[in-house]
Amino acid sequence: MQQLIQMFLTAFGTADTIQHDAVALQLKSDRIAFTTDSYVINPLFFPGGDIGSLAVNGTVNDLAMAGARPLYLSVSFILEEGLSIETLWKIVLSMQRAAEAANIKVVTGDTKVVEKGKGDGIFINTTGIGIIEHNQIIAPQSVQPGDLILLNGDLARHGIAVMAERERLEFETTIKSDSAPLADLVLELLAADIKVHCLRDLTRGGLASVLNEIAVAAKVGIEIDEKSIPVIEEVRGACEILGFDPLYVANEGKFVAFIPPKDSDRTLEIVKSHFSRNAAIVGKVIEDRNSLVTLKSTIGSKRIIDLLSGEQLPRIC
Amino acid sequence: MQQLIQMFLTAFGTADTIQHDAVALQLKSDRIAFTTDSYVINPLFFPGGDIGSLAVNGTVNDLAMAGARPLYLSVSFILEEGLSIETLWKIVLSMQRAAEAANIKVVTGDTKVVEKGKGDGIFINTTGIGIIEHNQIIAPQSVQPGDLILLNGDLARHGIAVMAERERLEFETTIKSDSAPLADLVLELLAADIKVHCLRDLTRGGLASVLNEIAVAAKVGIEIDEKSIPVIEEVRGACEILGFDPLYVANEGKFVAFIPPKDSDRTLEIVKSHFSRNAAIVGKVIEDRNSLVTLKSTIGSKRIIDLLSGEQLPRIC
Repeated sequence: MQQLIQMFLTAFGTADTIQHDAVALQLKSDRIAFTTDSYVINPLFFPGGDIGSLAVNGTVNDLAMAGARPLYLSVSFILEEGLSIETLWKIVLSMQRAAEAANIKVVTGDTKVVEKGKGDGIFINTTGIGIIEHNQIIAPQSVQPGDLILLNGDLARHGIAVMAERERLEFETTIKSDSAPLADLVLELLAADIKVHCLRDLTRGGLASVLNEIAVAAKVGIEIDEKSIPVIEEVRGACEILGFDPLYVANEGKFVAFIPPKDSDRTLEIVKSHFSRNAAIVGKVIEDRNSLVTLKSTIGSKRIIDLLSGEQLPRIC
Repeated sequence: MQQLIQMFLTAFGTADTIQHDAVALQLKSDRIAFTTDSYVINPLFFPGGDIGSLAVNGTVNDLAMAGARPLYLSVSFILEEGLSIETLWKIVLSMQRAAEAANIKVVTGDTKVVEKGKGDGIFINTTGIGIIEHNQIIAPQSVQPGDLILLNGDLARHGIAVMAERERLEFETTIKSDSAPLADLVLELLAADIKVHCLRDLTRGGLASVLNEIAVAAKVGIEIDEKSIPVIEEVRGACEILGFDPLYVANEGKFVAFIPPKDSDRTLEIVKSHFSRNAAIVGKVIEDRNSLVTLKSTIGSKRIIDLLSGEQLPRIC
């Protein structure tokens, strides 16, 4: 245990910040965002990332979706006996790099060990604190009919990358996870005084699930346009082979922003400058008491996009 | 998953607070304490508690040890397929009761499911935020030679209760865990303007490990007096049978407070009024560059109390 603590201190900081029961922090705002996620992804390493960087980016992104500036992270490991120190160190270093890139500080942590066969290598919980420096209410209740829906890039890379690695599927091109931190981009939108009504990252359940959740919570309908939704060729092909609909596959660096039409050009410009050239306005909010999400297909027909009723891909985050 | 979310909403609160990526919170102070712990205890239920109440009390106590007022808790579950809904519900209700008793609000959460054989029923992470409303620095660096060491009650009940349940040992009297929240007591000490130099709860490694950690961090020596350290008869007997030294066994409702002599009578009075009639001053801080912890035994001899070099009881929290 002393060895492990030493490893975490080396990666994340000083004894002062880590070795107390609780760490004391001085904030520059009294309005904060708070979020938690446990990561149980299988396999631990996949093209474009690993459980460590994912655990940092995922929680950073949840803070970003509240419009918060990520500041502090707690990290808690559940290790299965037999996990090699090399693997753990690789994951810890990946977390350190991801935290540095996302400008968030790991300030407190915990480690538990369970017997062989009672875990699965490593599970990681990260819990994040961010400060909210604006007065906008970024939440489903701010969504209004007329809002445009911006998507910051192409769909379904994370889910397919993890699935391919897990099942040892080979495609012509290796599909990489899109795992990335989104906070800088969101903070730039807010700094540009764009009236962001709602943000949501497209993790478990993908775009389709998120739009359904928001339509219900905001009591509105949503129309999206299939031909505007970017999916790269390799991912589309893999989805067809595997029988997945890219609208439902998990992403780890994609989000939707609900914005008033007057701000849409500027938003798209900022998003494209930051990240992804294939960011696009993919739909709009309409009045609809039934909270339906409808898709206009490439051939012009319309269909309802439901919540997925069956099983989703397990352990992709 | 929707069913699970409904269960957590029923137990912990409203859709507003739980169903976002991150929850927004307004604080009354910009100085906070932040702490995380994962709980992997085996068995899930034991005399005096269960993994749910333990996960709340444990994190509440880590906040209390920083002199913070516990405010908000995140809860993240890792469930193994096959865990019954009844068991989960029992644990969730136990968390709800413990959170209410400790005056802390569960405001955000997460649930992951792993396949049978890849977990062990349920693991719980809780991460807590508290606010610090005083200007004392409650930490090892504030400990000074001359400080008295107060212990708030008898040792070793949690570790022995869990071990007995796990190994199905029967004693004449059932030994119950001492799991309990400590924040109200600590806040009362601070409100009484007692100059608390350091606080530490006596979990993994027990009193002996905590005193060693603090002696090293504070660069002082510590002398404790065996006859002043309360251990109830049944626990002492069980320790003898099992070959454990009560000084090293985990507790979940016990802490030491390092206080200047002038405040010791008042401290003892407040602690006794709150909790445990067998609270006691068990030792004092002395100058010692070697940071030794020594015990004066009941027969008058002195011995050094080291950090335990071998294995500790696994999965007792």
